[in-house]
Amino acid sequence: MVKAPEEEHPVKAFGWAARDNSGVLAPFHFSRRETVEKNVKLKILYCGVCHSDLHSVKNETGKVTYPVLPGHEIAGIVAEVGSKVTKVKVGDKVGIGCMAGSCRSCENCANDLENHCPKMVLTYRSKYFDGTPTYGGYSDIIVCDEHFIICWPENMPLDAGCPLLCAGITTYSPMKYFRLDKPGIHLGVVGLGGLGHVAVKFAKAFGAKVTVISTAPHKKEEAIKNLGVDSFLAAANTMDGILDTVSAHHPIQPLLNLLKSNGKLIILGVIPKPLELHVFPLLSARKMVAGSGIGGMKETQEMLDFAAKHNITADVEVIGMDYINQAMERLEKADVKYRFIINIAGTLKDA
Amino acid sequence: MVKAPEEEHPVKAFGWAARDNSGVLAPFHFSRRETVEKNVKLKILYCGVCHSDLHSVKNETGKVTYPVLPGHEIAGIVAEVGSKVTKVKVGDKVGIGCMAGSCRSCENCANDLENHCPKMVLTYRSKYFDGTPTYGGYSDIIVCDEHFIICWPENMPLDAGCPLLCAGITTYSPMKYFRLDKPGIHLGVVGLGGLGHVAVKFAKAFGAKVTVISTAPHKKEEAIKNLGVDSFLAAANTMDGILDTVSAHHPIQPLLNLLKSNGKLIILGVIPKPLELHVFPLLSARKMVAGSGIGGMKETQEMLDFAAKHNITADVEVIGMDYINQAMERLEKADVKYRFIINIAGTLKDA
Repeated sequence: MVKAPEEEHPVKAFGWAARDNSGVLAPFHFSRRETVEKNVKLKILYCGVCHSDLHSVKNETGKVTYPVLPGHEIAGIVAEVGSKVTKVKVGDKVGIGCMAGSCRSCENCANDLENHCPKMVLTYRSKYFDGTPTYGGYSDIIVCDEHFIICWPENMPLDAGCPLLCAGITTYSPMKYFRLDKPGIHLGVVGLGGLGHVAVKFAKAFGAKVTVISTAPHKKEEAIKNLGVDSFLAAANTMDGILDTVSAHHPIQPLLNLLKSNGKLIILGVIPKPLELHVFPLLSARKMVAGSGIGGMKETQEMLDFAAKHNITADVEVIGMDYINQAMERLEKADVKYRFIINIAGTLKDA
Repeated sequence: MVKAPEEEHPVKAFGWAARDNSGVLAPFHFSRRETVEKNVKLKILYCGVCHSDLHSVKNETGKVTYPVLPGHEIAGIVAEVGSKVTKVKVGDKVGIGCMAGSCRSCENCANDLENHCPKMVLTYRSKYFDGTPTYGGYSDIIVCDEHFIICWPENMPLDAGCPLLCAGITTYSPMKYFRLDKPGIHLGVVGLGGLGHVAVKFAKAFGAKVTVISTAPHKKEEAIKNLGVDSFLAAANTMDGILDTVSAHHPIQPLLNLLKSNGKLIILGVIPKPLELHVFPLLSARKMVAGSGIGGMKETQEMLDFAAKHNITADVEVIGMDYINQAMERLEKADVKYRFIINIAGTLKDA
């Protein structure tokens, strides 16, 4: 028998969820599991509004089951720990990103690539191992296995830091893996939004020369002034790598042309339709097209520690919970610099 | 004033060339430059018949200027050396592969990637630096800068070795660069022809488990019996890399599905139409699509030395020069195991 969200688990919880593909979010009572064994309970303070939250509440991927309670850029305080928890203690500042579980026994998990685990559980819109749906960070509390908890660096702000748990790791991880983190390289960043602006900051911290590739010329001045972008124009055969953060369909041939020999085009946006790939640039100059999605837990911690050390945060606009539907509308028009953050603890009120 | 091929250079030469896009090859008188400075003159003994020779004589790429005298898998004996040659001496066994020149000063040339040099000169169907067309190995002699000469290992047969100068380096180089040369990895090889069968031999020498992916079931037995292929069937998410040697248009999604996390699909065939690339496998499991074309001179020498040490040669059918047009017809139907080699010195006769 399917239980109501309020009765699935013993601990009462409250947040905002979408009930149907109108995508409108509204107050929602549900429940969380008990903080037993290796579980950690967080009082959520802030939660970022990722573009994929928008895709999910509107079911644009066609795979969600309502209600959808989004949010996977979560910062909070440990409120309770299970008997076997060793990683954190009550009162610690912590974060939860895109993942809430994985099998912990496959080759990918053994290699700290929980994000590639076939049984990986998303922080929201997945089924947890007990069969109940996962609900995200647009809510007062969350319970999570300690393995999926990120320890918060002391000097990292809780609001401007939370987008790093998704946008940060999504851009940091491919720069490391594809060796685009070397000083002096020339990196292109396509799209200057939530992911793109964080990509620029990491790239600058690694010592890269950064060129932003954007179809929005009004973004030029802000990119150069505020983010230290080196250029807004690129010549053919000059780039070592390109991080392409655009989720809409677009031609990749002009991007491949910007790459030098051995250059790497890394796709980060979930582009629904197949891309057209001409093989000639791949053969003649050993260019590659690859992709990357978030990163493992170990690397996520490494990324956040690196960001804290280099004073990297997201540029955010902090909003109240009851502004979320307007925020979603603005996000759809890319009218935000560059991430909305919900002040959960300060504004989420149970009616 | 454009000179006739016989009068462009002082040294008389003879071979077989195609005059038009019928692709029919016939005897052809032309000329070679003098063996001055760093030039080396070869008496050609054998020349392999590469699939791209077929594309070129029929102008399937739409870019050739007739006459086309193909052949870029050349083995021969040094007949004369220029005053500044230090690499070889008269009587040495040597080879010439796909390249006859490059700028020698760009970043790619400095990194031993002459094959990525924008001014790279192909052994045939290019213009040399003096503006004259290059003619390939279906001919009695050839003159080449010593930099583009490969020294022939003592125990490497001249006939069965020449395909390594194209098919060998084209498969060896990406295995090295993309780190698919590690013992124990699971490598797929798509297409069992000139490139594919050599790819299998290198992969086995590196200690890989090799699965051949072919739409021709009759190739199964020979692949397992003669080439030591481990398997002809592959399961999803099991391969570390795939070398795709097929030049015809084909879907790559099924190949991406065979790859494990971080798996690499390496395209080696010149596929004229753009491929359809779904980004989801790239994002969810960090799979990549890359390409590779031949290799630099240093690596080509390394490859041939490695092949000699591990007794790797191509499986060849040696033919006479006057059989070339029938051989081209059979090649078009993939009716060869796996490479035709022209016995140039023994059969090329000036009428």
